[in-house]
Amino acid sequence: MVDRMLRGEMRDAVRERAEQMTRIRLDSMALSDLELIASGALSPLTGFMRKADYERCVDEMRLSNGVLWSMPVTLAVDQDVAVDIEEGQEIALCEDDRVLAMMEVAEKFPYDRKIKRHEAQEVYRTTEETHPGVAQLYRRGDVVLGGDIWLVDWSTAMKTEFPELRHTPAQTRRMFARRGWRSVVGFQTRNPIHRAHEYLQKTALEIVDGLFIHPLVGETKEGDIPADVRIASYQTILRDYYPVDRVLLGVFPAAMRYAGPREALFHAIARKNYGCTHFIVGRDHAGVGDYYGTYDAQDIFDQFPSEDIGIVPFKFEYAFFCKKCGGVVSAKTCPHDQEDWIYLSGTQVREMLRRGEMLPEEFTRPEVAKVLLEGMRDCE
Amino acid sequence: MVDRMLRGEMRDAVRERAEQMTRIRLDSMALSDLELIASGALSPLTGFMRKADYERCVDEMRLSNGVLWSMPVTLAVDQDVAVDIEEGQEIALCEDDRVLAMMEVAEKFPYDRKIKRHEAQEVYRTTEETHPGVAQLYRRGDVVLGGDIWLVDWSTAMKTEFPELRHTPAQTRRMFARRGWRSVVGFQTRNPIHRAHEYLQKTALEIVDGLFIHPLVGETKEGDIPADVRIASYQTILRDYYPVDRVLLGVFPAAMRYAGPREALFHAIARKNYGCTHFIVGRDHAGVGDYYGTYDAQDIFDQFPSEDIGIVPFKFEYAFFCKKCGGVVSAKTCPHDQEDWIYLSGTQVREMLRRGEMLPEEFTRPEVAKVLLEGMRDCE
Repeated sequence: MVDRMLRGEMRDAVRERAEQMTRIRLDSMALSDLELIASGALSPLTGFMRKADYERCVDEMRLSNGVLWSMPVTLAVDQDVAVDIEEGQEIALCEDDRVLAMMEVAEKFPYDRKIKRHEAQEVYRTTEETHPGVAQLYRRGDVVLGGDIWLVDWSTAMKTEFPELRHTPAQTRRMFARRGWRSVVGFQTRNPIHRAHEYLQKTALEIVDGLFIHPLVGETKEGDIPADVRIASYQTILRDYYPVDRVLLGVFPAAMRYAGPREALFHAIARKNYGCTHFIVGRDHAGVGDYYGTYDAQDIFDQFPSEDIGIVPFKFEYAFFCKKCGGVVSAKTCPHDQEDWIYLSGTQVREMLRRGEMLPEEFTRPEVAKVLLEGMRDCE
Repeated sequence: MVDRMLRGEMRDAVRERAEQMTRIRLDSMALSDLELIASGALSPLTGFMRKADYERCVDEMRLSNGVLWSMPVTLAVDQDVAVDIEEGQEIALCEDDRVLAMMEVAEKFPYDRKIKRHEAQEVYRTTEETHPGVAQLYRRGDVVLGGDIWLVDWSTAMKTEFPELRHTPAQTRRMFARRGWRSVVGFQTRNPIHRAHEYLQKTALEIVDGLFIHPLVGETKEGDIPADVRIASYQTILRDYYPVDRVLLGVFPAAMRYAGPREALFHAIARKNYGCTHFIVGRDHAGVGDYYGTYDAQDIFDQFPSEDIGIVPFKFEYAFFCKKCGGVVSAKTCPHDQEDWIYLSGTQVREMLRRGEMLPEEFTRPEVAKVLLEGMRDCE
């Protein structure tokens, strides 16, 4: 397990040195990636990608050493910043003016329009700027700095939001072991919890020892429900409807990329690092708009030998309350007609909440609906 | 896959010869075992066990060649019948007066009280005659005949009951393949279906491609609900509540042994032969009375390397309707108190049915309760 968080005297010494280095101000995606790398969530990455890793990742979904890796993790900077940095140089990575990490710049290589378009096509399967991940990619700097990082300050990046839920992979592995869980299923989400998600999670939990609910709290696109409201929805439903000894809630500090299948694999591999043995992959996982087929994010797991992936996907269908079944079921297990189903789209949910309406009990636990209503009211 | 069912001219020739051989009339357990062996459900067994297989199975749960095997499959005959049979002789195995199979008697060895008590202790974990499996063992003949069998008549053993559901392993494997199921979970039961079973089955089905519901229809102990009523309950619920393209119903022609953990493993291995990749193991699977611990039948799967077992157990907790959860859940996933649970014991169910009372909707689908009520009425 990678651990790039310096501690004690070592940290103090490096931090002091870093204060004198050239400073790079990180964007929110790079800040998220820095925290993920430093904590070991992206093991075996020990820093931002070098060229050989980046290129093979984009073209073959592997690192240069052959390890399966589906998403580029790059540090992009503007040309006018890059011009002062040479290969071999040590630099300071900052959030605003605060030095968070030291980086040994091993390589510097262009990240021009042509290279980004190639990445967009391969990774996002589109070059359209209407795709939020592609738009974000195009906005980034036009030079990439690759090299190892060392975190010297985790008070900022790691402690501002949800400190009590910001478990590192080393911590979650210890927590799973202490609870005696030999198998743990991870659940990724960027949405509040409705009964359909509860159904998927509990179905998976019937099969394994423990459930790790791991909502993403890094940057998401506009229109998504804010992280604190989402986390409050989880804390509420966990209190009232989940077996406390079988579930752990944590937050996943990654930014959303909306890369669909590639990101589903990335999410799974990160959760393997957190100690999960299984990972829930729903329909259109990490998708946006109509860029990906409904099952693309599930099918990508079949493209690689399971030992290369190292975590078992639980592939789930669309779930909903069925009046004839008298409970939440899925399109796989329910034989009845759509007219018997109670289901709301994300857009419908947001509209109802905006109008101050309670969501139906069959769709959302009333305790959760209340949290969402209050949360949305506070956002207005 | 073992296939000991002769066909065409070969069968006619052997059947003609068998008419002249010494006849052994099989008890109902041996009749069940004969059908299972001949159809390949007990692969790699090609006949009734010889001494080396029997002894190693009893003592180590393996055949003499090392293959995992948890239940003895013996042909026991009375001393006065055995006295006329020599090792090397061919004999005819009969249901009443009808010749079903030819057997090459390779070995003849004693099955006396001491040997049976040893088998009872090792296999059933008790020597008490109040255990129905042990009682059945003690009632059997005191000589064992071991050797290969060839089925020459499957019109009787295989066609009398539920012919349209009596799929052989070769047939189910073909059916699974035709439906494109790469993973199939098998469900063993000797009970009618209630919502708790539906929950376990559908939970498992969320994880795999197909569900093979495989009720045991060989001999069961007194007090169990008759096979035809049980099958009718399945056909009813499948029609109204299951996705037809994801489920296959078949019958498992084995007799119950009530050997708990050993029989759970036996049930799983047989279902592997039918083409299942996963197998549902509930609490106290194949148990009776208080002879086995609640989780013994699940824990036995951990005693062997998974490649020796060759089929993945889905270990489930006790399931029930929970009023607070608003649906069927399990003791693993529900955090609420027992007072919120709606659950009836097997004894309570039988008493209600005997009194002509409908079972609660939360416990049994009304369509199924009706079938059971009518079925029990016809039995009185």
